[in-house]
Amino acid sequence: MRPTITAFATSPDRGRGLARDMPVRWALEEAGIAYDVRLLSFAEMKEPAHLALQPFAQIPTFEDGDVVLFETCAIVLHVADPSDALLPRGPAARARAISWTSAAVGTIEPPIVERETMLLLERDAPWFADRLPRAEERVTRRLAQLSARLGERDWLEDGFGCGDLMMVSVLRRLGGSDLLATFPNLVAYVARGEARPAFARAFAAQRAVFERTNEGSPSRSSS
Amino acid sequence: MRPTITAFATSPDRGRGLARDMPVRWALEEAGIAYDVRLLSFAEMKEPAHLALQPFAQIPTFEDGDVVLFETCAIVLHVADPSDALLPRGPAARARAISWTSAAVGTIEPPIVERETMLLLERDAPWFADRLPRAEERVTRRLAQLSARLGERDWLEDGFGCGDLMMVSVLRRLGGSDLLATFPNLVAYVARGEARPAFARAFAAQRAVFERTNEGSPSRSSS
Repeated sequence: MRPTITAFATSPDRGRGLARDMPVRWALEEAGIAYDVRLLSFAEMKEPAHLALQPFAQIPTFEDGDVVLFETCAIVLHVADPSDALLPRGPAARARAISWTSAAVGTIEPPIVERETMLLLERDAPWFADRLPRAEERVTRRLAQLSARLGERDWLEDGFGCGDLMMVSVLRRLGGSDLLATFPNLVAYVARGEARPAFARAFAAQRAVFERTNEGSPSRSSS
Repeated sequence: MRPTITAFATSPDRGRGLARDMPVRWALEEAGIAYDVRLLSFAEMKEPAHLALQPFAQIPTFEDGDVVLFETCAIVLHVADPSDALLPRGPAARARAISWTSAAVGTIEPPIVERETMLLLERDAPWFADRLPRAEERVTRRLAQLSARLGERDWLEDGFGCGDLMMVSVLRRLGGSDLLATFPNLVAYVARGEARPAFARAFAAQRAVFERTNEGSPSRSSS
């Protein structure tokens, strides 16, 4: 039996792999787990059937028999768990991988999302030009700390792991901005993540949804 | 050997148990694990010795032999792991507990922290009065969804678990505001968490640091 995840039927990112199903797809590909995808409209995300799985009306969810998860970080850790490649067995290495996965979501992502929300919802607000630099300073401060820690290494710890998967996914949300470009080692780090075959397969799968949807078509896909 | 956590030598919350060592202390108390605390000044948090443990110059960290963790969510999950009480063994219940722990940090906390940041740093900004309601709307939207899900139940799932511990900890940051009061079932939920003996022990331990520091005294405590 294959697990089923949920994703946007029409993703606001238009197939750029920035929605939160992308790290889950990527983790599944790294772990070599085939999966099904149930696509949801924005209306379906607010219906009781989905709220029973995801109380905050978001994607993604993960269902595998009676095991049901929501929240990207939780799903990525669950998928990574039986895979030595993504989440090492040794308790010390395991602790570091889980810390980085949590840090991506708990420390790096929030200021990035705050900035995104301003760009999306507050462009016409009278404070936009004055406040945006403050929000961007908070992003840059975290990027500077991450850049200092990464240094010249390829990955945050010895070898690629679920912490890198989550961190690269979060940093990709800065894509079009100059904020990331200030830190060449982070730019190279993101590129290393994107160059992984499992990333490419996950990206292609979510891209295919966008392309099919743009032709106006089915609401179920599999990968 | 006892694990060691780090905490603020002089917490900005003045002993109200709102700093991020509090959920870690609480989890340790629930799990019945005695621990030591290393208190850090703001200057010490930026020194290489601490950055090696916590790249973002934050507290708490958790050290237990060669197992070192940072990020509250990661530490709480690690402490909860061997404890059936906090993190059930069965895969379905375990998945839900991890989802809720992640949701507290990934979905509920970010808008609460955004609002806090405005209250702390932007009170004198010309946009404060106009923008605060927007930030508060984002908090209220998440509280409404959480309240709907909790309903009349005592805890988010069957029995108290690490998801409740993390969620109550995050909701406590709204303490003095009216935002939480709109949802009586969430107010009662927080009160149920605070009424647990393990919460009381953790609260007293962090409070003792504030009281000692206010008398101007040592930089190491144990609990």
